[in-house]
Amino acid sequence: MGAHTVTSFDEELGQVGRLVDRMGELAGAMVGEATHALLQSDSALAQRVIAQDALMDSRQRELDERAITLIARRQPMADDLRAVVGAIRMAGDFERIGDLAKNIAKRVDTVGQTVAPRELVHPIDSMAALVLDQVRDVVDLYGARDAAGLVELRNNDERIDVRYTSVFRELLTYMMEDPRNITACTHLLFCAKNLERIGDHVTNIAENAYYVVTGEQLPLNRPKSDEMAAPPPAV
Amino acid sequence: MGAHTVTSFDEELGQVGRLVDRMGELAGAMVGEATHALLQSDSALAQRVIAQDALMDSRQRELDERAITLIARRQPMADDLRAVVGAIRMAGDFERIGDLAKNIAKRVDTVGQTVAPRELVHPIDSMAALVLDQVRDVVDLYGARDAAGLVELRNNDERIDVRYTSVFRELLTYMMEDPRNITACTHLLFCAKNLERIGDHVTNIAENAYYVVTGEQLPLNRPKSDEMAAPPPAV
Repeated sequence: MGAHTVTSFDEELGQVGRLVDRMGELAGAMVGEATHALLQSDSALAQRVIAQDALMDSRQRELDERAITLIARRQPMADDLRAVVGAIRMAGDFERIGDLAKNIAKRVDTVGQTVAPRELVHPIDSMAALVLDQVRDVVDLYGARDAAGLVELRNNDERIDVRYTSVFRELLTYMMEDPRNITACTHLLFCAKNLERIGDHVTNIAENAYYVVTGEQLPLNRPKSDEMAAPPPAV
Repeated sequence: MGAHTVTSFDEELGQVGRLVDRMGELAGAMVGEATHALLQSDSALAQRVIAQDALMDSRQRELDERAITLIARRQPMADDLRAVVGAIRMAGDFERIGDLAKNIAKRVDTVGQTVAPRELVHPIDSMAALVLDQVRDVVDLYGARDAAGLVELRNNDERIDVRYTSVFRELLTYMMEDPRNITACTHLLFCAKNLERIGDHVTNIAENAYYVVTGEQLPLNRPKSDEMAAPPPAV
């Protein structure tokens, strides 16, 4: 083997880490563009997000292969093994965020074809902004190895759940007011649910990032609310 | 180290494989009980499913730890590495099936409290039976190392997608007919979506099982339809 092909464990681990960073950036871009496309009924932008999902999948496959080969060849122990396994898990969550963004993008045209989409889409606006902030923050906090910030971010997920329950109720009300809203609101409910699930993946990423940074697990159970706890809205 | 603590790679791999089998059996039981609870408005059974999710999570953590330690200590190559990585991936999909079953179970009480739940739940009946068959089949086919059967199963996912689109349209019609159905139908739409996603995870499991059994990847893209392709039902 020539000297130029010899790499250290740290170099290889760094390559895996950079792939995680790139997946995180792509996930943030996809969520931002998917929600923008939904709010603006921008069909071309939605198509772009749908196409990006293949790039996300190929990055995850590359990361998985590199990380697993690294474990098999280098037999890392303790901290190093934790870093590689943490990278695999974070990549899995970023890939699923991309998948959820794609699913939102796929609903853009259906929602846009219905009556008064602007008014119906409005409740999702602030929820989308909140989720997008969380996705970008977790990428930044992991990059900065900010353990305290990751704990705070993880505990913020409750805010998305509360917002989701409110959006859920508001969309149900629009459906009850006018049956012509039902198709669009149904797709918007799925979009809101996807945003809430993106928030859950951000939480997973924050927990894995915390584990990689500190070597300690965050407690598994945090408070969690959902729309099932809310009474149905009055007609 | 005493002789009684010395295990072979094959023994350790067998332990990981048995954990996958147990996760598969639990996933099948959870899907069966969650859909039965939904169709019968059986609150106690739903609570049982919700409680089982913690067992699923702990099995996945155990499997992940064993599999990763195995890779790090034994440096398996080619076939053996593939078997361990395949087990990790299959475990991830079974865990998510358990999570989706739990989500269906959490909706049982809300749906049961509404008017005429029996009639509204009916469209989901045959879809649930189809999905449950798929979950049980993938566990059996993997156990039997039946590569041809796994390919056939993977290609059957389209049937679930078609059924889902039909359920989606039927539930939308009930909502349009009577606004009092909207809350229950919304939760049932999420249940149907969860069943469809369980079908997607069965597909992933079939693909990973095929890879473990044969050493070859199935092509990534298969035909895929969803409710966005269907025109909205007439009011």
